[in-house]
Amino acid sequence: MSLKDEALSLHKKNQGKIAVNSKVEVESKEDLTLAYSPGVAEPCLEIVEDNAKVYNYTAKGNLVAVVSDGTAVLGLGDIGPEAAMPVMEGKAVLFKEFAGVDAFPICLATKDVDEIVETVKRLEPTFGGINLEDISAPRCLEIEERLKEELNIPVFHDDQHGTAIVVLAGLINATKFVDKKLSDLKVVVNGAGAAGLAITKLLLKVGVEDIILVDKFGALAPGVEEMNSAQSDLAEVTNQEEKRGDLSQVISDRDVFIGVSAPNILTEDMVKSMAENPIIFAMANPTPEINPPVAKKAGAKVVGTGRSDYPNQVNNLLAFPGIFKGALKVQASEITDEMKIAAAYGIADLIKKEELESEYIIPDPFNREVVNRVALEVAKKAVEDGLANIDLNLDELEDIFSS
Amino acid sequence: MSLKDEALSLHKKNQGKIAVNSKVEVESKEDLTLAYSPGVAEPCLEIVEDNAKVYNYTAKGNLVAVVSDGTAVLGLGDIGPEAAMPVMEGKAVLFKEFAGVDAFPICLATKDVDEIVETVKRLEPTFGGINLEDISAPRCLEIEERLKEELNIPVFHDDQHGTAIVVLAGLINATKFVDKKLSDLKVVVNGAGAAGLAITKLLLKVGVEDIILVDKFGALAPGVEEMNSAQSDLAEVTNQEEKRGDLSQVISDRDVFIGVSAPNILTEDMVKSMAENPIIFAMANPTPEINPPVAKKAGAKVVGTGRSDYPNQVNNLLAFPGIFKGALKVQASEITDEMKIAAAYGIADLIKKEELESEYIIPDPFNREVVNRVALEVAKKAVEDGLANIDLNLDELEDIFSS
Repeated sequence: MSLKDEALSLHKKNQGKIAVNSKVEVESKEDLTLAYSPGVAEPCLEIVEDNAKVYNYTAKGNLVAVVSDGTAVLGLGDIGPEAAMPVMEGKAVLFKEFAGVDAFPICLATKDVDEIVETVKRLEPTFGGINLEDISAPRCLEIEERLKEELNIPVFHDDQHGTAIVVLAGLINATKFVDKKLSDLKVVVNGAGAAGLAITKLLLKVGVEDIILVDKFGALAPGVEEMNSAQSDLAEVTNQEEKRGDLSQVISDRDVFIGVSAPNILTEDMVKSMAENPIIFAMANPTPEINPPVAKKAGAKVVGTGRSDYPNQVNNLLAFPGIFKGALKVQASEITDEMKIAAAYGIADLIKKEELESEYIIPDPFNREVVNRVALEVAKKAVEDGLANIDLNLDELEDIFSS
Repeated sequence: MSLKDEALSLHKKNQGKIAVNSKVEVESKEDLTLAYSPGVAEPCLEIVEDNAKVYNYTAKGNLVAVVSDGTAVLGLGDIGPEAAMPVMEGKAVLFKEFAGVDAFPICLATKDVDEIVETVKRLEPTFGGINLEDISAPRCLEIEERLKEELNIPVFHDDQHGTAIVVLAGLINATKFVDKKLSDLKVVVNGAGAAGLAITKLLLKVGVEDIILVDKFGALAPGVEEMNSAQSDLAEVTNQEEKRGDLSQVISDRDVFIGVSAPNILTEDMVKSMAENPIIFAMANPTPEINPPVAKKAGAKVVGTGRSDYPNQVNNLLAFPGIFKGALKVQASEITDEMKIAAAYGIADLIKKEELESEYIIPDPFNREVVNRVALEVAKKAVEDGLANIDLNLDELEDIFSS
């Protein structure tokens, strides 16, 4: 059977991929009395008295909404909320299978930023966290920013931050492997969409100082006309020499190429023009910015892609399940850059320095240690920074997240 | 352990009562390829081409949202969306355990009618049906009416129609038992809130002609000042003799008392003033309008209540699981009065005439035949009336809903 037929058959056989199940039995009148009327009034009354108890007596504390408007689904673009459902159900499946987190897909019949924000706000009582997914840029930036401000539960846009965390993890190990320092790196990020901007911001935060962002119109620099407002903001704190021009003109002497852009736009000659032992993350999907063997032949020391059939897959699955697992366990009020950075170091640390190889910089997504390590780092950081509503000490946290 | 402690412990032990589970395995890269990227693009593309295929490839077709704003929860009143969660989770549990229907609780952080309507509209792509729950009257009437108009999936307010269906089922059998005819009955409905109005409308629809509705201010009749607009509408088509006065004044010679009102307001003397072999449904919770033994002593032939510890429990559980199971299986576009009536006759028919007893008029909610019988009747009626998107013949339907 072709992949297409297999995939369609899998989705049809079960009528989708998720089910809502009961955690309690209702086999008798006594069961009914406890799970429903009149017994159910007791947890209701406890919550009336202390709203925080909703985390004790309902599923909220382990429940994430996977919210999309279907405008930027995989490589398919704006396919609408119904057609986006299989992807959001898939994400919910991954949350459960990798982290034990309950996740529910919500595909919204609106593309209006204000309406999306107000709808998610109205859903807040039900959920312990919000994972935004496949919402087109730059709308997704405003939606995330406003929701982070207005909600008391963590909000995370995986297309931005999941990618940024795993790229950072890969870069930490790649840098170690080629014996350079993060703070010395000259980086070019190609593709100044939501993911490219998030990667850049996170790298700046860990001390990478010299980054040039490039989009279709060329390098971002103050005064470049084609930039949107999010790009303009970053142009102020990157590209300090204010270089102009396209990728081929700004890539020379760079240590690192990070691509979240388009197929086959990084050439052999460009790689050859980079600094010694260049590091390449070519994450355009399904066809990377450069074919990994070609990049290696041109001198790249480390190559990562978004694909599972090449080494060093930059897969968000390494991040989002553990991020939410950790944040939910301590009832973190938000997911901060510090937590993302801790997660990235946690992922990177799973490969010891002596185990690092050109083709083994990033752990395998099926390495089951990953999720608990990420969760532990996120929860620890939340507690340290006073953002956790449940205050656990390190021993308790390590106990909870022991694999 | 007290009921309170047991109920709290049950809710706390599992952190609530529902889980979102995966119906597919993700143990390997191959699994990931089918359930997520890139295989998941295939069902997405099928749905882009034909939106109706969302019912084949996603959970939508068997998925109901249990929507509340927490304004009229059980007997607890306006306790807010968080405190309402245990009840909505409980409802979701009942949907799954009794009908195999996936149901997800949505508690909204708004009480504004317009905002509730627009929020549910935006959630439509995800769900196959909407069950409104514990929303205060008269707001619930407008919300249901507008959603029925604007959505293409079934919308059902259980507090109104679930109760009405089971009361009708009980009345069908009680009438048979006392050898009267529905169309000859003189009925008094005490309590002109959402449930009382819905019961009255459904009884009118099956040919009960002589109904008097009574609220705190007395009998509804044209010109009575205290009525809201929904009550005024019904005053036009009930109480044809335009009687005025309180319950004690209008109950004499009535065959049936239906109470959805307050504890202990039906007296022995009132029952004695009713017609021969009176039928009493006293559904105030937890304390009925009259204590069943007292009613029997005063001459009542049949007494039903909302309680599980008396005979003839009027329990919505007899209706809503089967209503949605039937509607979803044939993708009915709405749940009409005709379907509700068919459901009521289906419930009533489960007790043969020769089995009817004063204390056995309504089937037990744990009688597992009920859900499939109700589902069958609803699905049949949907197909007959051209409201089903899946056109099945009677044999096919009976096969699907065979117990």
